[in-house]
Amino acid sequence: MGDMSGELLSRVRVVLCRPGHPGNVGAAARALKTMGLTDLRLVAPQRFPAPEAEWMASNALDVLRAARVQDSLGEAIGECVAAFALSARPREWSPQVLALRAAAPLMLERACGGPIALVFGNETAGLSNEEMLACQFLVHIPADPGHSSLNLAQAVQVVAYELRMAALAAPGGSARERADRPATVQDMEGLYAHLEEAALASGFLDPADPKKLRERWRRLFSRAALEREEVNILRGLLRALLASRRDAGGNS
Amino acid sequence: MGDMSGELLSRVRVVLCRPGHPGNVGAAARALKTMGLTDLRLVAPQRFPAPEAEWMASNALDVLRAARVQDSLGEAIGECVAAFALSARPREWSPQVLALRAAAPLMLERACGGPIALVFGNETAGLSNEEMLACQFLVHIPADPGHSSLNLAQAVQVVAYELRMAALAAPGGSARERADRPATVQDMEGLYAHLEEAALASGFLDPADPKKLRERWRRLFSRAALEREEVNILRGLLRALLASRRDAGGNS
Repeated sequence: MGDMSGELLSRVRVVLCRPGHPGNVGAAARALKTMGLTDLRLVAPQRFPAPEAEWMASNALDVLRAARVQDSLGEAIGECVAAFALSARPREWSPQVLALRAAAPLMLERACGGPIALVFGNETAGLSNEEMLACQFLVHIPADPGHSSLNLAQAVQVVAYELRMAALAAPGGSARERADRPATVQDMEGLYAHLEEAALASGFLDPADPKKLRERWRRLFSRAALEREEVNILRGLLRALLASRRDAGGNS
Repeated sequence: MGDMSGELLSRVRVVLCRPGHPGNVGAAARALKTMGLTDLRLVAPQRFPAPEAEWMASNALDVLRAARVQDSLGEAIGECVAAFALSARPREWSPQVLALRAAAPLMLERACGGPIALVFGNETAGLSNEEMLACQFLVHIPADPGHSSLNLAQAVQVVAYELRMAALAAPGGSARERADRPATVQDMEGLYAHLEEAALASGFLDPADPKKLRERWRRLFSRAALEREEVNILRGLLRALLASRRDAGGNS
């Protein structure tokens, strides 16, 4: 593996949301380390640190002990340039859905621009809709439809394996740095809040009948992979429109 | 997934050699079931059945309870048309070595002719050389060279996932039945015993200086994927040669 591939894998952050069993956290740390990943984040773990986590981590104690505990998913993924939710469960509405094998090269491509996050849900409840919609992509492992529930650490293992395989397959050239600065998750949340404000103020978004408008623009902009500069342009436009409405005494 | 792909996956037998922890056996059963595999064999498990196995199996209790305990690896793989050893550890001498992703389509191709076996070693000791040489291929998961030891159930999960992905990708036509009858592991062992007898009797094989001869012909014939009829022809030839030596009063 070239240095650049290793560098890309080091930018992959694995975020476990509300993990219930510390043994799974340890097993996930081991799974990451076998595939060359090291950045583990825990959002509101039920119990951590814990001896079961250390037992299951085996020779990945360093990864486990470096794992950062974070209060919210937003905090864990805020500075990432893309967040990928892992879920087997289909939803009525979700970000763009990708099978894992197709997602892996895209993950690495995004990682050229900065850290990316892979977000896993709680062992029994999975990801909440809110957690899922905080991500830009929904990734699924094509398991048997009747029995699609992988153990958490095993799902982490399969995803880390696919990423490593994609990194090994990537030609050196594709791992180049991007010259432009991609927007972070935080940048995008700022844009969405701004869009919502504008849509409400203009009456375009009726809070009583939202018609999935919020989800639609999230999906659209997720696919587009905006630059930070582009976010600034869009927000500048929204700001100007809102100001001109106020100047004109507009009211929805 | 077409019926034929499902049929091929049902011919994949996963053999765990001397598993130490029953929790791993249960987690392996769950891993298989999520990918549409069901045939689990245990060679001399340290403790089975066991409650930890049932806890970890989750909704794959049927696969776990149907798991057959066998006295020897030979018994577990005898009627298979090919056996693939999983090992991260390089050996001085081994069967043909394949990375998992390249091995998966080959596994399915062999499964067109009958059951195939995936053979995993003990959690701490791995596969013995004898166990590995009983297989026709050595398959490795391209993990981080410094930390290549996956948890047993996680290795099973990754391998089952790759097989399912290969089955999903296979065009319907490649899952056809083979018209000819492939040799089983037992057939091949019969041939190897016969070759050894002939080589010793003729003085071609010097027991004091075997020069890896046994390993060499195993590797050669594993690659060739013999038909049962071809084994019969080779053994007929050996039988004739040995008989003619005796008639001529030959002696090494």
